[in-house]
Amino acid sequence: MKKLIKNATILTMESNRLVKGDIGIEKDRISFIGKMPDHFDPEYEIDARNHMVMPGMINAHSHGAMSLLRNYADDIPFWEWLTEKVWPIEAKMNSNDVYWGTMISIAEMIRSGTTAYADMYFHSEETAKASLEAGIRCSIAKGLVGSSEEDEQRMADTRTLYKEWNGAGDGIISVMAGPHAPYTCDASFLGKVMNLSDELNIPIHIHLSESEKEIEESIKKHGKSPIAHVHSLGLFKHHVLAAHCVYLMPGDIQLLREENIYVAHNPLSNLKLGNGIASIHEMKEAGVNIALGTDSSCSNNNLNLFEEMKMASLLAKGKTTDSTVLSAFETLQMATKNGARALNLEESIGVLKVGGKADLILINMDQPHWYPHQNLISSLVYSSHGSDVETVIINGKVVMEKKEFKTIDLEKIKYESKKIVERIY
Amino acid sequence: MKKLIKNATILTMESNRLVKGDIGIEKDRISFIGKMPDHFDPEYEIDARNHMVMPGMINAHSHGAMSLLRNYADDIPFWEWLTEKVWPIEAKMNSNDVYWGTMISIAEMIRSGTTAYADMYFHSEETAKASLEAGIRCSIAKGLVGSSEEDEQRMADTRTLYKEWNGAGDGIISVMAGPHAPYTCDASFLGKVMNLSDELNIPIHIHLSESEKEIEESIKKHGKSPIAHVHSLGLFKHHVLAAHCVYLMPGDIQLLREENIYVAHNPLSNLKLGNGIASIHEMKEAGVNIALGTDSSCSNNNLNLFEEMKMASLLAKGKTTDSTVLSAFETLQMATKNGARALNLEESIGVLKVGGKADLILINMDQPHWYPHQNLISSLVYSSHGSDVETVIINGKVVMEKKEFKTIDLEKIKYESKKIVERIY
Repeated sequence: MKKLIKNATILTMESNRLVKGDIGIEKDRISFIGKMPDHFDPEYEIDARNHMVMPGMINAHSHGAMSLLRNYADDIPFWEWLTEKVWPIEAKMNSNDVYWGTMISIAEMIRSGTTAYADMYFHSEETAKASLEAGIRCSIAKGLVGSSEEDEQRMADTRTLYKEWNGAGDGIISVMAGPHAPYTCDASFLGKVMNLSDELNIPIHIHLSESEKEIEESIKKHGKSPIAHVHSLGLFKHHVLAAHCVYLMPGDIQLLREENIYVAHNPLSNLKLGNGIASIHEMKEAGVNIALGTDSSCSNNNLNLFEEMKMASLLAKGKTTDSTVLSAFETLQMATKNGARALNLEESIGVLKVGGKADLILINMDQPHWYPHQNLISSLVYSSHGSDVETVIINGKVVMEKKEFKTIDLEKIKYESKKIVERIY
Repeated sequence: MKKLIKNATILTMESNRLVKGDIGIEKDRISFIGKMPDHFDPEYEIDARNHMVMPGMINAHSHGAMSLLRNYADDIPFWEWLTEKVWPIEAKMNSNDVYWGTMISIAEMIRSGTTAYADMYFHSEETAKASLEAGIRCSIAKGLVGSSEEDEQRMADTRTLYKEWNGAGDGIISVMAGPHAPYTCDASFLGKVMNLSDELNIPIHIHLSESEKEIEESIKKHGKSPIAHVHSLGLFKHHVLAAHCVYLMPGDIQLLREENIYVAHNPLSNLKLGNGIASIHEMKEAGVNIALGTDSSCSNNNLNLFEEMKMASLLAKGKTTDSTVLSAFETLQMATKNGARALNLEESIGVLKVGGKADLILINMDQPHWYPHQNLISSLVYSSHGSDVETVIINGKVVMEKKEFKTIDLEKIKYESKKIVERIY
């Protein structure tokens, strides 16, 4: 089906230049940007007057099903949160729970302009199923924790996930390997994960250097930082999406840059769990590819990349006491182009271009907090919010129009998640 | 007119307990909370099913008219921002501009659940006029800068503002004295401001210890911190609303507590201008009254207290690397009860109570980022956003219902502000 988006203010993210014009979509791809060619004969039209059209946001680190744990354990110490609150509830969660928990998150992400996300959790086939049904792009990693007797089974699980789901939905579903972290996966286990990554030719999604405690233990155990440790094991020969990287030791940034590691920065979760502020400015200056993530809504407590964008920029300015660092446009790149690279989808998403996949969002600029209209890129990062997103198109399909979901039954999500919460708490 | 709000989830902020029930409003005041008495005969009803009703947010530090400078000068050094960007534009602004600039800000504040604000700017009679017309509660200070030849005129201006506006609109307008900062007002000038404060019995609104440069210069000039300096001049014998207090020296927190100074914390502006993160946890532990402000939308770049709440709490956790500090409820108190104290309006607003002024907001909890419903106070601070506010009542009057403004003509604001921007830029 041919779709036409008319009268838009277009930010392609190929540059920071805004253009007025139309966008054509044919099947899953963008067929033109600017002026409609004579032969184009749209069957579906969307009027984007007073709206900005830009690439959909990309959430490079999340745990979708953890919406079920949202606002249940806040303002308590990190280890109590994890071991006494999160783990006991997770132990009760079955595959059906993961499906509905992920669906809440997908609804929230689409509502706030996210069109692709990287997920790490368990019962990952349910994450794939929910994403496919809702029509959101997803890179799924089954969280892997090393424990020798079950190692082979775990590799087999990811192999099965890959066979059944990788490339599903015209390619909106892809699979990654998901070793949880160097402190939960030993060298032998990480070796198996690397072999799996080679065998299936899939990226690796891992937590790295999130807390101070993790650094201290890594130094005690391996004599080096978590980043230097996994590098010495050969992990960085693969496409690695490394979540967090908050606590960095000398040499870490150089390794991240030289080995082309894709960092997922999760500013709100890092603050909320008391882990502090990552050195994003230093990483960016060194040339590290930094994407943005929300982490789970259990440590945030929402999945709104507009909040992450604003805070990524403001925290970088506050941390360096320099109001010039991490400009609005650079921050937008983190949420789009850099996210696409991190998910190994640079060819198809992250910028609006002819021939690229049609993953795009319409943002309503006709609101008090947008006025007066001056630098609209500043508005987008510093004044706007996910709630300004009105219409979302993913892989050429309209999944939300004027805030109305087209693929998601919110009433059913609410009903099912309420039942689950009553059971697991 | 008697109004009834039915089926609400009520957070009075007198405690953190949520109650289901109704709220009655008679003229400007709350007449009951809980169960409707038999004799109450409402002429207007609002159904608050799935909505939380709580006291309106209080913005303790802002410069409303500066919305005209929103998104015009970002990502540049602070002094260049102030002297080369802000001041030259402000020099072109007349009283009509202040009126319309303030109106944009009022629209934005009401839309995001703010029902009272403290403002400091020039042409302040226009701020009063706009606030009165829109029906928003406002404590207005005319910004005063010490310059001997015009001192008496400036005191006379605030006297006139007080006579013409203090108590207007059934008390929604009040006036403060507004000496800009100790580095722009010398000791003699501050003495005159203190006399004026005594004469009119009005609070004093001042910027204090915002930037590192300010501290260094104060020590060079006065041998003490800005806080210790104004204390030694006797300023703290008055009701003082002190904006920022980011850079503190030993003894400063003790002075703020002992002298009952009301601090307005502006976390996003402090980050964005590269001034860093105030020590809110330490101030709170010492017993200092901390309210929340947005500062202007030229250094933020919006006026959304939900964003300030979330970030105040998360920044305190991140700065102390302790996830237990500044709980969701404590943060909510900053935006309500503490703000009321800071504006010297503790008797009438800041909590919902029978006999108190009816300043309250209805927040839509029926949205993906609120589900599943667990700890709703956590939801409010960590998951929600100003865009969840649907209905706003100030002084008993409905100023927004289901996001529709009742007192504000947004199309006219847009038209007029566009004309102004074309002239002053």
